[in-house]
Amino acid sequence: MAGIDLNSDLGESFGAWTLGDDAALLRLVTSANVACGFHAGDPATMLRTCRLAAERGVTVGAHVSYPDLAGFGRRSMDIDPADLYADTIYQIGAVRAVAETVGARLGYVKPHGALYNRIVSDPAQAAAVAHAARQTGLPLLGLPDSAIEAAAAEAGVRFWREGFLDRAYRDDGTLVPRSERGSVLTDPQAAAERSVDLARSGRVESLCVHGDSPSAVAMAEAALGALEGAGIEVRPFA
Amino acid sequence: MAGIDLNSDLGESFGAWTLGDDAALLRLVTSANVACGFHAGDPATMLRTCRLAAERGVTVGAHVSYPDLAGFGRRSMDIDPADLYADTIYQIGAVRAVAETVGARLGYVKPHGALYNRIVSDPAQAAAVAHAARQTGLPLLGLPDSAIEAAAAEAGVRFWREGFLDRAYRDDGTLVPRSERGSVLTDPQAAAERSVDLARSGRVESLCVHGDSPSAVAMAEAALGALEGAGIEVRPFA
Amino acid sequence: MAGIDLNSDLGESFGAWTLGDDAALLRLVTSANVACGFHAGDPATMLRTCRLAAERGVTVGAHVSYPDLAGFGRRSMDIDPADLYADTIYQIGAVRAVAETVGARLGYVKPHGALYNRIVSDPAQAAAVAHAARQTGLPLLGLPDSAIEAAAAEAGVRFWREGFLDRAYRDDGTLVPRSERGSVLTDPQAAAERSVDLARSGRVESLCVHGDSPSAVAMAEAALGALEGAGIEVRPFA
Amino acid sequence: MAGIDLNSDLGESFGAWTLGDDAALLRLVTSANVACGFHAGDPATMLRTCRLAAERGVTVGAHVSYPDLAGFGRRSMDIDPADLYADTIYQIGAVRAVAETVGARLGYVKPHGALYNRIVSDPAQAAAVAHAARQTGLPLLGLPDSAIEAAAAEAGVRFWREGFLDRAYRDDGTLVPRSERGSVLTDPQAAAERSVDLARSGRVESLCVHGDSPSAVAMAEAALGALEGAGIEVRPFA
Repeated sequence: MAGIDLNSDLGESFGAWTLGDDAALLRLVTSANVACGFHAGDPATMLRTCRLAAERGVTVGAHVSYPDLAGFGRRSMDIDPADLYADTIYQIGAVRAVAETVGARLGYVKPHGALYNRIVSDPAQAAAVAHAARQTGLPLLGLPDSAIEAAAAEAGVRFWREGFLDRAYRDDGTLVPRSERGSVLTDPQAAAERSVDLARSGRVESLCVHGDSPSAVAMAEAALGALEGAGIEVRPFA
Repeated sequence: MAGIDLNSDLGESFGAWTLGDDAALLRLVTSANVACGFHAGDPATMLRTCRLAAERGVTVGAHVSYPDLAGFGRRSMDIDPADLYADTIYQIGAVRAVAETVGARLGYVKPHGALYNRIVSDPAQAAAVAHAARQTGLPLLGLPDSAIEAAAAEAGVRFWREGFLDRAYRDDGTLVPRSERGSVLTDPQAAAERSVDLARSGRVESLCVHGDSPSAVAMAEAALGALEGAGIEVRPFA
Repeated sequence: MAGIDLNSDLGESFGAWTLGDDAALLRLVTSANVACGFHAGDPATMLRTCRLAAERGVTVGAHVSYPDLAGFGRRSMDIDPADLYADTIYQIGAVRAVAETVGARLGYVKPHGALYNRIVSDPAQAAAVAHAARQTGLPLLGLPDSAIEAAAAEAGVRFWREGFLDRAYRDDGTLVPRSERGSVLTDPQAAAERSVDLARSGRVESLCVHGDSPSAVAMAEAALGALEGAGIEVRPFA
Repeated sequence: MAGIDLNSDLGESFGAWTLGDDAALLRLVTSANVACGFHAGDPATMLRTCRLAAERGVTVGAHVSYPDLAGFGRRSMDIDPADLYADTIYQIGAVRAVAETVGARLGYVKPHGALYNRIVSDPAQAAAVAHAARQTGLPLLGLPDSAIEAAAAEAGVRFWREGFLDRAYRDDGTLVPRSERGSVLTDPQAAAERSVDLARSGRVESLCVHGDSPSAVAMAEAALGALEGAGIEVRPFA
């Protein structure tokens, strides 16, 4: 039976500030990208998120970021790859320990925000992240056909490719840039069709739903229904 | 053969700022309390310190702190014990991952600065730290006859007692307060005698040398010589 | 004609995280306590808040805090008074410059959270805050009959006393502790009566409405109506 | 009589960490670029630095930076210009208030590290910094023939051009890149000659000596002697 994973960014509250509907999304996804304190996610938030993930049987991923609370990790940074490597190990270890105390399993690493985008095309930063994943024994989740996919192969790290159920794709399988009209989906039905198409294409092993979309929950629910109707099991990739 | 451990605070640089003579102390101590990023110790510094510790066969301890870079963790804080628990797990996990990538062994937890002092007498914060040590499977190093020693016993956590080779003690085994004249030793010969006395007393399993004393290295060297001369082996407690 | 000020904590968002209904409260209050970056309020948030305040003719206050983003400034801290003094000057200067660029007027200093509570009874920290207010030429807003009121008098700083329209008071004018039943008001009518009582008592020059109460806006609106009905003008104290 | 200014980066300690020989340099320079807390310089350090500057009659400049303590402001960042504008106002206000409490005069703004280099060629970030300088009524100090010089002209902000007494220049007046051999001077005699050449060229109004060079003090002393010998007065540019 064919299968695909559904992932979302979670645990992005910080101290007194809350963000996102983690409880609702954790009932739908199979993989939770948990913020590790560098762009969001103080330790108590991480603990709460991992506990919920464990209760739902959701795999936890280390959602590693540049050190940038004020910018929510969305600002590209010319960080020394050696520092990025150490920062990544640090975040992975932190979330792994937190997850283990509540019986959650840390199953993968997914870079966040500006770092995610940077290592699509920056080989030096990509190599630092891939090296950190290898040293901690974890696979990577990211954009296919990218510098980070190449760096993972080079480092001997398993790479899981993800697609976006709320983004439009070109015929050649590349994303329509956000600057173009119609590039971002909000209609649950459209997201559901996109999900089935991506799952059937075999090009990706995981579907990402952006938790900060107002219709995130509705899109995820529609996608689950459509995938089930198409005979595609939604299950953790790892 | 009798034995005792020698520990010191290390890895307390941060980014562009350096502090302490880590290389010299790592040739002398058997246990290194490594800062975990909350009072000092950015990830790259942690990695460098753990690598040196591994090369020297020195056991690494998680030197956990209140979140307070500007105050170097020296300001007591009324933190919610649930937050302190999560902060402690986070720091332990971070330094454990960093240590493991360079073949160093994380062997224990030692609270730093104001937290160290606070949990001598604050049962709620002490319980939070002891609970974090239990959940990560690590022993604690701290002051004997304290709330943290009691909390460790309650939580089923092994507690290692430490003495200070550069502090004066009363006849009843308690520390002379820092406010009193002669409470802090700087003379290597006096520190050496203090070390042998403490080791023979059986009251402590580890001796702490404060790395920020100008004569730290000289005192540690004198202590090592005197302990050897007295037939007391210096070895990791864990 | 009798008068009283109405103040509230505003500008407590940070980066990607939002908190409170600033736009609604700025239509009601006469004084806005603006977070200065130490417990909340990144510079862009400060700028946005001060611009709104200027448009509404609302006086801006420096809502100074301990340096504690993760704890939202709600954790008491044993900070060296010399450091607290410098931290306070720093925050005042930052918000003053931001306010001036948009035509808002910085009119006073109000300590936030744990610092507010601490300097009710800690003379050393109170003196540090009062000294900072004096050096920057600003009055203080705080709890009557407190160490900070005494420190302000000692430093020659004008002190404005505030009451809480959403808290219960004893007959002797002291607050009912939060631990007691009925200590916190949420009913707009009760808050309106409390406001008129406090304004008529002459014991306070400003009324605080806590922005994080779900009925903050409703209580402020009811208070404004009742004060107007009682012939008491709501106007900035400064 | 011809004249030139001599500036250096100062106040770059942070909490328990010290950096640079501020006391020695403050006896030599006429302008002190004081760190404002974003890359270095906690408020107590700022206060101490400004007090020393006031005692020496040295003009204080706001040494504004990206928010990056861990990277010492040396990592270029894709910050939104609107955020950079607010961050710059915030830092200027903070150091202005600190300086004024000790009788020092805030006379200019000089961007630090990666921000300094970025706005040589990034018009959007340059415009944000220039706009902040205009709104706070301060001139800018920076690299000649740059995007920031153009942005200052556009914003109506006085721009003071600086040269480097410890860097090699090409015949056309541009800097030899650091990657080339001989680009950085450490010899006091060479720095002294460079200083006189730059002062006589009329191309710059201020000479920068990098405080983190081991021979910073020796080079500054040699430069002062040579400039005096050449009849060039060393005085603040502002």
